[in-house]
Amino acid sequence: MTWALIADLFGTFFFAISGCLLAVGRGYDLVGSLLLGALTGLGGGVIRDVIIGRLPVAFDQPVYLLPPVLAALLVFAIAPSVQRFRRTLLVFDAGGLGLFCTTGTVIALSAGLNPIAAIVLGVTSAVGGGLLRDVVANRDPQLFNPNDLYAVPAILGAALLVGLWVLGWHSSLTGFAVAAFVFLFRVVSLRFKWRIPHASPPRGSEEP
Amino acid sequence: MTWALIADLFGTFFFAISGCLLAVGRGYDLVGSLLLGALTGLGGGVIRDVIIGRLPVAFDQPVYLLPPVLAALLVFAIAPSVQRFRRTLLVFDAGGLGLFCTTGTVIALSAGLNPIAAIVLGVTSAVGGGLLRDVVANRDPQLFNPNDLYAVPAILGAALLVGLWVLGWHSSLTGFAVAAFVFLFRVVSLRFKWRIPHASPPRGSEEP
Amino acid sequence: MTWALIADLFGTFFFAISGCLLAVGRGYDLVGSLLLGALTGLGGGVIRDVIIGRLPVAFDQPVYLLPPVLAALLVFAIAPSVQRFRRTLLVFDAGGLGLFCTTGTVIALSAGLNPIAAIVLGVTSAVGGGLLRDVVANRDPQLFNPNDLYAVPAILGAALLVGLWVLGWHSSLTGFAVAAFVFLFRVVSLRFKWRIPHASPPRGSEEP
Repeated sequence: MTWALIADLFGTFFFAISGCLLAVGRGYDLVGSLLLGALTGLGGGVIRDVIIGRLPVAFDQPVYLLPPVLAALLVFAIAPSVQRFRRTLLVFDAGGLGLFCTTGTVIALSAGLNPIAAIVLGVTSAVGGGLLRDVVANRDPQLFNPNDLYAVPAILGAALLVGLWVLGWHSSLTGFAVAAFVFLFRVVSLRFKWRIPHASPPRGSEEP
Repeated sequence: MTWALIADLFGTFFFAISGCLLAVGRGYDLVGSLLLGALTGLGGGVIRDVIIGRLPVAFDQPVYLLPPVLAALLVFAIAPSVQRFRRTLLVFDAGGLGLFCTTGTVIALSAGLNPIAAIVLGVTSAVGGGLLRDVVANRDPQLFNPNDLYAVPAILGAALLVGLWVLGWHSSLTGFAVAAFVFLFRVVSLRFKWRIPHASPPRGSEEP
Repeated sequence: MTWALIADLFGTFFFAISGCLLAVGRGYDLVGSLLLGALTGLGGGVIRDVIIGRLPVAFDQPVYLLPPVLAALLVFAIAPSVQRFRRTLLVFDAGGLGLFCTTGTVIALSAGLNPIAAIVLGVTSAVGGGLLRDVVANRDPQLFNPNDLYAVPAILGAALLVGLWVLGWHSSLTGFAVAAFVFLFRVVSLRFKWRIPHASPPRGSEEP
């Protein structure tokens, strides 16, 4: 499971960077940036572990605290020279999405969840940290942004991984390949503004 | 426990409809609608199951994923002809409130919680999904709307059910009767704008 | 563990007062105030207990429901004469912060978590209830307010307590001393607007 630990730590780091960038953009101080980065980086994994009933890795292995600390310091150091917060945030967020989708699905399968539940837990792990970040920072979650695809690559990636697992083809190599697929799908969807249908509310409807 | 499964699935469906309606009113796409519907429909049950320490049903029995999928497709299909999003949302939300209040309380009692805790867990299950829906969609939660009664029918329903349970009168029939009571109480309170006292902040107070 | 129970109940009461004050300032009714008070007072402990995998105390010992009920009634009774909601809220919130930081860290250490994880869980317990309060009430969390120090006293207090524990000097007396230290640090930081550095976003940056 060493590859899984590495993937999880990098996913934590990428999400933490996205949280710290949002924090700096909002004018939070260094500790606020560390906390939002930690919530973003560790939140998806805590939700995942609480659901399957094990002690969350963030509270078991102190090494998981390193990525948020490094992310907060790095973003603090380079903040004045980051010209495009929003775009940088989205790329790091996509990296976390790919890695957490992979590790979450594998952890779910290893915990004995059925294939369908493993997909749901993989997606939950992947989108949970970013959702917590946006909710506590009081902004509309990226997850629901109708102008690009966020959950779709995670759902496809988790389903692909479950398929590979069932066929006995899962390995660290295919795991990283799935993570890369999710990352690239997300980034390309942002670049080309891929969209899926959305029903418009009827004219004259009351906003619910 | 078959009646409980049916009640839980219908409660999930009703709450999911309310989430999907909110999503469509907000202009989310089909996947965003599915996710908000799933969070609303499954969220209360996940919170309930995590608190009593069992694997959440949504991650154990894949049948629980059907209601959100059906809700997202149904709302997507009929969205252009829904004239009153807000009112429809409130009615489905009331249906979920009644059913989840009942199943949550029964599950708490079956898990061995004391009667007081069973009422609190029943109410938590009942209001949890709707609260998550409103929080992630970044709007003021219905739960706290001072212009009608939301938690009161759930609290009364859960207390009633605990009373019936203690007296040995609990059955699927009384369970459904309590759910219907909560639903009707909520709908009538909306219709007639029943309110309970609220202290006004003093003139000149700073908004906290 | 009697001192810990007392500290936990007072922490719950202080946080509940802060939640009820926010509710009254927002014009919530009496039940809305009770619910926001209960979420604020009990939320941090529920998160703490769910993470370490035990039945949350709020669902195990009914006595934990008394503080939110008392807080809601008290705030309801005195609301018209509270002249400074915001300041009163902050003082009670600081009291909860100190007590929950202490009890959360001790519970984490008693549960066998490593020292680093105990600090993180202590801080999580301390800031969790207030964060939930601000998130569901749809306002920017106090936790991230860059104009004073909120997490810093909790982090220092939890670290101090872990140090005392490791040295074998932990007792109810030192526990209360740490809680008082956190409370005073927080209040003084508010009074004198102590701040720590925060990186400003570069000119011309897009708000992420």
